[in-house]
Amino acid sequence: MMRTYPLDAGAKTPLYEQLYRAIRQDIMSGALAGGQRMPSKRRLAAHLEVSQSTIETAYGQLAAEGYLLAKPRSGYFVQSMERAAPAAPEAPAPVAAPAAPDAPAVAFDLRTNRVDTDGFPFATWAKLLRGELTCRASQLLDAVPPQGAPELRAQICEYLAEFRGIRARPEQVVVGAGSEYLLMLLIQLLGRERVYALENPGYPQLRRVFCAGGAQVAPIGLDGSGLRVDALRRSRAGAVYLTPSHHFPLGVVMPAARRLEVLQWAAEGQDRYILEDDYDSEFRYASRPIPAMKQLDHAGRVIYLNTFAKSLAPSLRIGYMVLPERLLPAYRETLGFYASTVPSFEQYTLARFLQSGSFERHVARIRNRYKSRRDRLLAALQRSTLAGRLHVTGAEAGLHLLARLDGPLSEAQMVARAAQCGVRVAGLSGYYLPGSEACPPATVLLGYAGLAGDALEQAVAALETAWG
Amino acid sequence: MMRTYPLDAGAKTPLYEQLYRAIRQDIMSGALAGGQRMPSKRRLAAHLEVSQSTIETAYGQLAAEGYLLAKPRSGYFVQSMERAAPAAPEAPAPVAAPAAPDAPAVAFDLRTNRVDTDGFPFATWAKLLRGELTCRASQLLDAVPPQGAPELRAQICEYLAEFRGIRARPEQVVVGAGSEYLLMLLIQLLGRERVYALENPGYPQLRRVFCAGGAQVAPIGLDGSGLRVDALRRSRAGAVYLTPSHHFPLGVVMPAARRLEVLQWAAEGQDRYILEDDYDSEFRYASRPIPAMKQLDHAGRVIYLNTFAKSLAPSLRIGYMVLPERLLPAYRETLGFYASTVPSFEQYTLARFLQSGSFERHVARIRNRYKSRRDRLLAALQRSTLAGRLHVTGAEAGLHLLARLDGPLSEAQMVARAAQCGVRVAGLSGYYLPGSEACPPATVLLGYAGLAGDALEQAVAALETAWG
Repeated sequence: MMRTYPLDAGAKTPLYEQLYRAIRQDIMSGALAGGQRMPSKRRLAAHLEVSQSTIETAYGQLAAEGYLLAKPRSGYFVQSMERAAPAAPEAPAPVAAPAAPDAPAVAFDLRTNRVDTDGFPFATWAKLLRGELTCRASQLLDAVPPQGAPELRAQICEYLAEFRGIRARPEQVVVGAGSEYLLMLLIQLLGRERVYALENPGYPQLRRVFCAGGAQVAPIGLDGSGLRVDALRRSRAGAVYLTPSHHFPLGVVMPAARRLEVLQWAAEGQDRYILEDDYDSEFRYASRPIPAMKQLDHAGRVIYLNTFAKSLAPSLRIGYMVLPERLLPAYRETLGFYASTVPSFEQYTLARFLQSGSFERHVARIRNRYKSRRDRLLAALQRSTLAGRLHVTGAEAGLHLLARLDGPLSEAQMVARAAQCGVRVAGLSGYYLPGSEACPPATVLLGYAGLAGDALEQAVAALETAWG
Repeated sequence: MMRTYPLDAGAKTPLYEQLYRAIRQDIMSGALAGGQRMPSKRRLAAHLEVSQSTIETAYGQLAAEGYLLAKPRSGYFVQSMERAAPAAPEAPAPVAAPAAPDAPAVAFDLRTNRVDTDGFPFATWAKLLRGELTCRASQLLDAVPPQGAPELRAQICEYLAEFRGIRARPEQVVVGAGSEYLLMLLIQLLGRERVYALENPGYPQLRRVFCAGGAQVAPIGLDGSGLRVDALRRSRAGAVYLTPSHHFPLGVVMPAARRLEVLQWAAEGQDRYILEDDYDSEFRYASRPIPAMKQLDHAGRVIYLNTFAKSLAPSLRIGYMVLPERLLPAYRETLGFYASTVPSFEQYTLARFLQSGSFERHVARIRNRYKSRRDRLLAALQRSTLAGRLHVTGAEAGLHLLARLDGPLSEAQMVARAAQCGVRVAGLSGYYLPGSEACPPATVLLGYAGLAGDALEQAVAALETAWG
């Protein structure tokens, strides 16, 4: 007997769609059994009082999806389904994460991941972007080469030669969607059976990138000259990640002698590498920028990494690395197939931004701005009632300084009391890897990059109350 | 005795910089020994006949970089350097890769990685991008949440509900810089000790992504209904990558019964997953789009993947995946720290592009365009002298079809002769994993997405010559 499907010609859903869904439901439920022949289009159309084309469209779709089988000159047959054991329905959507307990409002955010986005040259960027949209047109839509747009890689090389003293060919440059992505590539290039030495303290995310990538890490402590090479030698590390120009978060500049020691360590092994992260080299206030370690790398053991996250904006997601010549064949062989991860629009716009001198001007302007914020913060701390008990270090460069407070308050108490007074600061211990020994007591990071106007003085006043 | 440094006041390089370099050179060469006291600023300034501030700047920089040590009230001392064994200089830059031997000019590119970029709605995209630049201003510069901009994830969910029959919450969506990047994340999420079953034939890059990620792959053959579940069961795979709506490159649509079988396979294991790549679901010509397999996924075993590479442009680098609820806690725990890899500009612009209906209109327009190109190609092949010997399959959807040629020519000969006549085509065997058995003979892929106007007819005429 022919089944009847209630179809509603007035509904928003087209008739063929209603019919398609109803038949599919019958097939899935078993009401229409495998092998059964469907009524002819003509007969079903008459039965349901719809046009034959409605039936034809529905049958056609069911056949395309494999619910029906169309046999030439004999009609449509129900496909048999191996009926799966009734699966447990997927767990219902979890309720939204509970809101944080009544936290005091954050008036001043002195965490270190802030940059001053007010300083971003929006008008210039938008103008260059529009120019690229107009001039390049469809070229923007073609995939860029895996290592990045040649124009951008050439500009990066010019920038490195002029400002970081690094000579590199565009062929050595790989542009990618941020440092984390580039590190994912490097783990694949250098191997996940390798132990990677990490500065301790350092970026908390770093350990997670290496561990998620399947590699082992060895935390290495610092002394006044940066990473301890004696500890590096005792580790089984085959690569070391460094921030030699300005250690994060301690602010140590690795002196030339220590740099040579690390380079010597690398040269002693067949296959040791140094990952130099030059993340904020643009922001040094007391002297010229510290040259990159890559400059001293005559043996081709330094992989240089940098991003535009601090100098332009975190949301642009453009980073790059410079591979030593000796690694290029392996890179091309094993990773050269990966498509470039940065949109062409951004790559071409950034290339023009560098070429036109806009980047250099922007960095000079924003460096002055950050310097004056640092100076205001230092002056406010100096004038404050905390001055006698507060020891500041790491203020020569970067976008934050370290403040250690003499007295009874622990680091956790400093952070909590600051929060109660509306100031968000990060404790230094959070940058140490789990199981580390000696974190200096009662020390917090104060980031000043995101606070304009009187905000820094007001934040210091709030800290006086918090820690007084 | 005080050393003399030849300084040139007329040079482009400032005096302090010349002095800095000269002293650094002396320290590096050993001419100035470790521990040695430098002349006072006053004395050296008089000796070199330059201002004291020149000396001060040079000494300051050398101290900042660790070449000199400043001792309060006693002056500057040379730091001792552990002299590294003279490192072998880095290998000279390799000569440029030799140019390809005289290849005939490519007049018609029928490879499958082309899309029609002429169809990209430049004006609309540029207008929306300008709008975002104006309205969001500095918000564009803040980092977006790790899983992507909430606006974009919400729009993706609406699109999936309307066009792919998938119900998902924005919390399940992860936006990333292309499929390869998303697969890198999935390998980290699901584990690299797992065996991943891959369709064979399939995307050649796929095996490389999994292998570079440290995972093992198991190639699984296809029959007329797609991936063979019997072979999948015999493999040790814990996850399977599928293109069920339109297999690449064969064009098979996996029928509902086979889909249920694969879902059943997944449900039988504690921890098995299906990676559904829905890469070109927008381009189906004969019927409505085939629903996504995710629609049938009541047990939460399907990870849905898609990109805008084919529907918009490869250079935008925006892909996304929908994770089942059951995987969200593990994702947040182990990978939630990764910063979003897609620039905020693109994310917000794409969200507006989806919201405004521009994407839907664009897809409808370009689908018609691709359909008419496919029809022209089919008609030209039909009219051609090859018609009797040429068997076309996989033309119902996507941006290419398969053509098998009866006669004496091998696949390699077909590709080579086509190239001699200016037509670039890809042989089917290139999509089979190494060591596969049965690749159909004398079969090539003909991609029609990139050829406008008379180009398709001209390309077919060239193929007549090549294969006639």
